Amino acid sequence: MEKREVYFDNSATTRAFDEVRDIVAETMTVDYGNTSSRHMKGVEAENYIKTAREEIAKTLKVKDKEILFTSGGTESNNLALIGTALANKRAGNHIITSCVEHASIYNTTAFLEELGFRVTYLPVDHDGHVSLDALREAICDDTILVSIMYVNNEIGAVEPIEEIAKIIKEKKPSVYFHVDAIQAYGKYVIRPKKQGIDLLSASGHKIHGPKGTGFLYIDEKVKIKPIIYGGGQQKGMRSGTENVPGCAGLGLAAKMVYTDHDARIDKLYAIKDHMIKGLQTMDGVTVHGLTGRDSAPQIVAAGFEGVRAEVLLHALEDKGIYVSSGSACSSNHPGVSGTLKGIGVKDSLLDSTLRFSFGAFNTEEEVDYCLEVLNELVPMLRRYRRA
Amino acid sequence: MEKREVYFDNSATTRAFDEVRDIVAETMTVDYGNTSSRHMKGVEAENYIKTAREEIAKTLKVKDKEILFTSGGTESNNLALIGTALANKRAGNHIITSCVEHASIYNTTAFLEELGFRVTYLPVDHDGHVSLDALREAICDDTILVSIMYVNNEIGAVEPIEEIAKIIKEKKPSVYFHVDAIQAYGKYVIRPKKQGIDLLSASGHKIHGPKGTGFLYIDEKVKIKPIIYGGGQQKGMRSGTENVPGCAGLGLAAKMVYTDHDARIDKLYAIKDHMIKGLQTMDGVTVHGLTGRDSAPQIVAAGFEGVRAEVLLHALEDKGIYVSSGSACSSNHPGVSGTLKGIGVKDSLLDSTLRFSFGAFNTEEEVDYCLEVLNELVPMLRRYRRA
Repeated sequence: MEKREVYFDNSATTRAFDEVRDIVAETMTVDYGNTSSRHMKGVEAENYIKTAREEIAKTLKVKDKEILFTSGGTESNNLALIGTALANKRAGNHIITSCVEHASIYNTTAFLEELGFRVTYLPVDHDGHVSLDALREAICDDTILVSIMYVNNEIGAVEPIEEIAKIIKEKKPSVYFHVDAIQAYGKYVIRPKKQGIDLLSASGHKIHGPKGTGFLYIDEKVKIKPIIYGGGQQKGMRSGTENVPGCAGLGLAAKMVYTDHDARIDKLYAIKDHMIKGLQTMDGVTVHGLTGRDSAPQIVAAGFEGVRAEVLLHALEDKGIYVSSGSACSSNHPGVSGTLKGIGVKDSLLDSTLRFSFGAFNTEEEVDYCLEVLNELVPMLRRYRRA
Repeated sequence: MEKREVYFDNSATTRAFDEVRDIVAETMTVDYGNTSSRHMKGVEAENYIKTAREEIAKTLKVKDKEILFTSGGTESNNLALIGTALANKRAGNHIITSCVEHASIYNTTAFLEELGFRVTYLPVDHDGHVSLDALREAICDDTILVSIMYVNNEIGAVEPIEEIAKIIKEKKPSVYFHVDAIQAYGKYVIRPKKQGIDLLSASGHKIHGPKGTGFLYIDEKVKIKPIIYGGGQQKGMRSGTENVPGCAGLGLAAKMVYTDHDARIDKLYAIKDHMIKGLQTMDGVTVHGLTGRDSAPQIVAAGFEGVRAEVLLHALEDKGIYVSSGSACSSNHPGVSGTLKGIGVKDSLLDSTLRFSFGAFNTEEEVDYCLEVLNELVPMLRRYRRA
């Protein structure tokens, strides 16, 4: 068995498309203008931004002006939460989120708690789905914002976005609904206007775009304050010289992942199904959460009984296979459980879980290699542990 | 006279060095890992960040851990001001800045005023230098922060940074001194520890580095809070997946501009002096601020009596020459005058001022071309205006 490189850590970050790299390079040394400049180099730069904004708006069927460029998913989440909380504090001080959100949500709500906002952390069921009953109960007169992720980054659970929007609409229609779609954008056809989403965060480097880029969809009716002040770029909502190469790369990546979208997603599901089928033949391996089309196409989280995730991760690395350990949740916040705990994974598996996450450059044949290696390593590591 | 392209708008943004573009491209598609990943691809990524941090720290003679990567100069300025203000509000609520700062300073202090902080805007003299007497008078028991730019972006005035630090030290040593060095970093040898600077902002795209990148030097003794929350990257001070290509490109650009630094600066001064000499032979042209080594090497601001800046800018553009109009200051904040007004430029020249700003790719021969074009255009535009 010959050594090779298999990158199954696409939910951490992805390799950029060659076309994305090329447009970034072009806008760094040829069309390198500042959009604020009033001469042709500024106009050229502005055109890259305009095109990128249009491409992204098109993928969501929203207006161009509803797309705001940020420095990444984390800034998008921060802006969505802090920006709407501060702009609407007269309407109320209560925010609802879940106990399985990303750190860029729960550490931001923790900051808002410091500022005097009250935050409810909804529990999830065994499959990682937010409790709709708890949501219904939590919405009150003071609620101004609900923030729920679209796809969970640890196990690929898909949250019931439309049901959540419906409950908000029934109970208190003025409440904004923010969706952290950082693991969902590019994988699902998202229609904020139809699905009742008021704000939506996405990141460039999860969709083979550049790092340091992201966007926040903000429905034009949303009242929101900036969190970064300066030269008034992007209509004052996000100051700072526009990152033309980053935006151009992000726009192109967005366009690419939504071109032949069904085929791309079918390919990811084929890879995922193949992986799960292989894992299910192994002894003492538990695939967490739902499978098939009931969970996201790119994420498989599995617990390997009797093996420490960290050890298996490095053993796989020695064979050229790159994955994540799935137990990552360093939060000390009382409301936050981390996804694996949140869905009730038993303690013995918490530190034995790996996440395999797939992207546009992966193949089923790489899954075969990975399974072959796992079948060789896992029994061996268990023997070592016992010894 | 044959048409060509002459980019004299380097204080708006610069063309990236080819080497910077190449390292960005490399880290987008080959070494594309996430620094948070525990496998080799993460370690590789972390090494790029580490190297960049070291390179930058070396240029300032500070510790590696005192360099924080941001999404650009605007974020650096926001973090410096908001981060220290919020972290030190128990010590006082008074901040001092000047009336000629960049929008990313004065719009951030305006936000802090909303939060209850009191801000003093120091006046400047005819050369654009902050009044030291006014500073001495302004510092009081409540003062927690002084923020002054190093090089003014409109006229290239160099502020008396060391004198300011000395006055702070005399009057109230616990006051932090933040320097917006966005137009100075790469042009001056800056030694924060010797010069009494506690925080210092810089931007990548002003030094032939990537857009969407910057850093904030934070002396290890400074008490500061983050403004963006999330996964705890950069020791919790700036969450969000690290922009590896951006940081690598920024580090390389920093290293490059400080390699053969004296020769680079001599070249810029030669270009600037050549430009000023030419402008001084023209009728009705006023060069604003100081000249020679008494102002920054890369900026010449000049008023063209009887010509609207906007018209001259576009006439130059037609000849392939790209510059900025110098009157840009859209602030409605009462304390903020804009540099040209602040230094007492007469009204008739406020809308007749262009900024020529130079970079590593410019030559004296381009100045000859620009002067030739100006000598042809300016009298013609004056005739049109009279007609």
